[in-house]
Amino acid sequence: MTATLMTGTDLAAEMVAKAADRARALQERTGVQPCLATVLVGDDPASATYVRMKQNRSKKAGIGSRSVVLPAETTTEDLVAELTKLSEDPAVHGILLQHPVPAQIDERAAFEAIDPAKDVDGVTTRSFGAMAFGEPGFRSATPGGIMRLLEAYDVPIAGAHAVVIGRSPILGKPVGMLLLASNATVTYTHSRTTDLPAIVRTADIVVAAVGRANFLQGDWLKPGAVVVDAGYNEGNVGDVDFAAAAEVASLITPVPGGVGPMTIALLLEQAVDAAEAQTA
Amino acid sequence: MTATLMTGTDLAAEMVAKAADRARALQERTGVQPCLATVLVGDDPASATYVRMKQNRSKKAGIGSRSVVLPAETTTEDLVAELTKLSEDPAVHGILLQHPVPAQIDERAAFEAIDPAKDVDGVTTRSFGAMAFGEPGFRSATPGGIMRLLEAYDVPIAGAHAVVIGRSPILGKPVGMLLLASNATVTYTHSRTTDLPAIVRTADIVVAAVGRANFLQGDWLKPGAVVVDAGYNEGNVGDVDFAAAAEVASLITPVPGGVGPMTIALLLEQAVDAAEAQTA
Repeated sequence: MTATLMTGTDLAAEMVAKAADRARALQERTGVQPCLATVLVGDDPASATYVRMKQNRSKKAGIGSRSVVLPAETTTEDLVAELTKLSEDPAVHGILLQHPVPAQIDERAAFEAIDPAKDVDGVTTRSFGAMAFGEPGFRSATPGGIMRLLEAYDVPIAGAHAVVIGRSPILGKPVGMLLLASNATVTYTHSRTTDLPAIVRTADIVVAAVGRANFLQGDWLKPGAVVVDAGYNEGNVGDVDFAAAAEVASLITPVPGGVGPMTIALLLEQAVDAAEAQTA
Repeated sequence: MTATLMTGTDLAAEMVAKAADRARALQERTGVQPCLATVLVGDDPASATYVRMKQNRSKKAGIGSRSVVLPAETTTEDLVAELTKLSEDPAVHGILLQHPVPAQIDERAAFEAIDPAKDVDGVTTRSFGAMAFGEPGFRSATPGGIMRLLEAYDVPIAGAHAVVIGRSPILGKPVGMLLLASNATVTYTHSRTTDLPAIVRTADIVVAAVGRANFLQGDWLKPGAVVVDAGYNEGNVGDVDFAAAAEVASLITPVPGGVGPMTIALLLEQAVDAAEAQTA
């Protein structure tokens, strides 16, 4: 292995410690504890684990949590009503809807029911527009975490060619927009892309966000490329064939311990941002 | 010249004729004439000309227009107030804010004051999100017009590599998102891009949206590329060195008579869409 590991664990711990300091200061100053509401629909065990992890981290950071659990057969209307209620509740500062939601639900409609001022997971179109247009607003947690990781490792972004693999509304699309806002040349690739390896070979920065284990091959990479693995597949495996990629890349994120902790750290940081803004 | 001309004039005329039929039918059925409000700030002669042209075309299509002209020294608040008033006025179905606006105005704040249901020019972040996420909503007029032109000329988009030059919120960014939604591999390039000619050389479709006369050179193109010139610079000149590019491209838009008429046609079509939706 020749690449340096881009680990998120320490950086995330630092971010969370700072968020905790700010949460404490806010509470001392105003009596208000930041509160993150989590909404879980259905009984998918992985989703339940994620939510519990986020709640535990919140608690450790001095952020209160409100847990809403809805049955698997919840309708779009019921979920929208719940998210609207939380959006209007002055005691709740941030809202996290754990996704994916069950198939019968219109996920986009649910996301849009979150007040952009409480959208600390960065899933609304308003948040997406803010990321795309460089306006103030919350960042999607994983894309925002990736940017912080790249910045912490002094990865040159301006003028670099960044190739994003995957185009989901909460990962591929926003991370591309954030890289573009930082003056990268950005290529969006996906399942319909012709000759993906040839395009990846031109990339200075590659973000893999496809959700397919070991999808990105080491021999697709340009020597010295920076590789960000935003995948998290069954068995704690990322989207990148790590061993092969680490022979070619200059910097690479491990899975786990790379992007994952940054995602939660950014979520908590933004929950405190939201609480501060709403308590001012 | 070996390229075929991708002209928008006839196609736009067809679109406007259909919009006019629908406007007439709506009026016969409900008594309501579609109404497009145009807002012009300041006395830039080119902007005034554009607005007048759009009003004339509206009139010919049986779309009423409401003309608001504000002084050059208008503040952001005053403009936001005016756009909010129009957004709330049930007699107005679509709103067009002619841009650019004078420098003292926060253009994004002004755009966001337009009700997305009346955003027939597709400038709000909500409209951008809809384009990016494939949701229902209005398209930015020029990007939407470009897509219609490509479709009319049977340009294969899925799997093609589209290179967008320029990243403005109303042109480069949305046209990239629309191309991505149609399954192109999309590369955003801009002033900070390293070796633009090498990237353009890999493009099956090139959209030039930089606002610099004759910027794109013919020898940057891959033989057979499809070239869309969204530029419109002083002296009726586009962003593409037309003569040289037409020797290499397979299809190319002229300036004027390419993208321009499509932009207005899409605006009018969307004004009728808005009137229909609000009169239902």
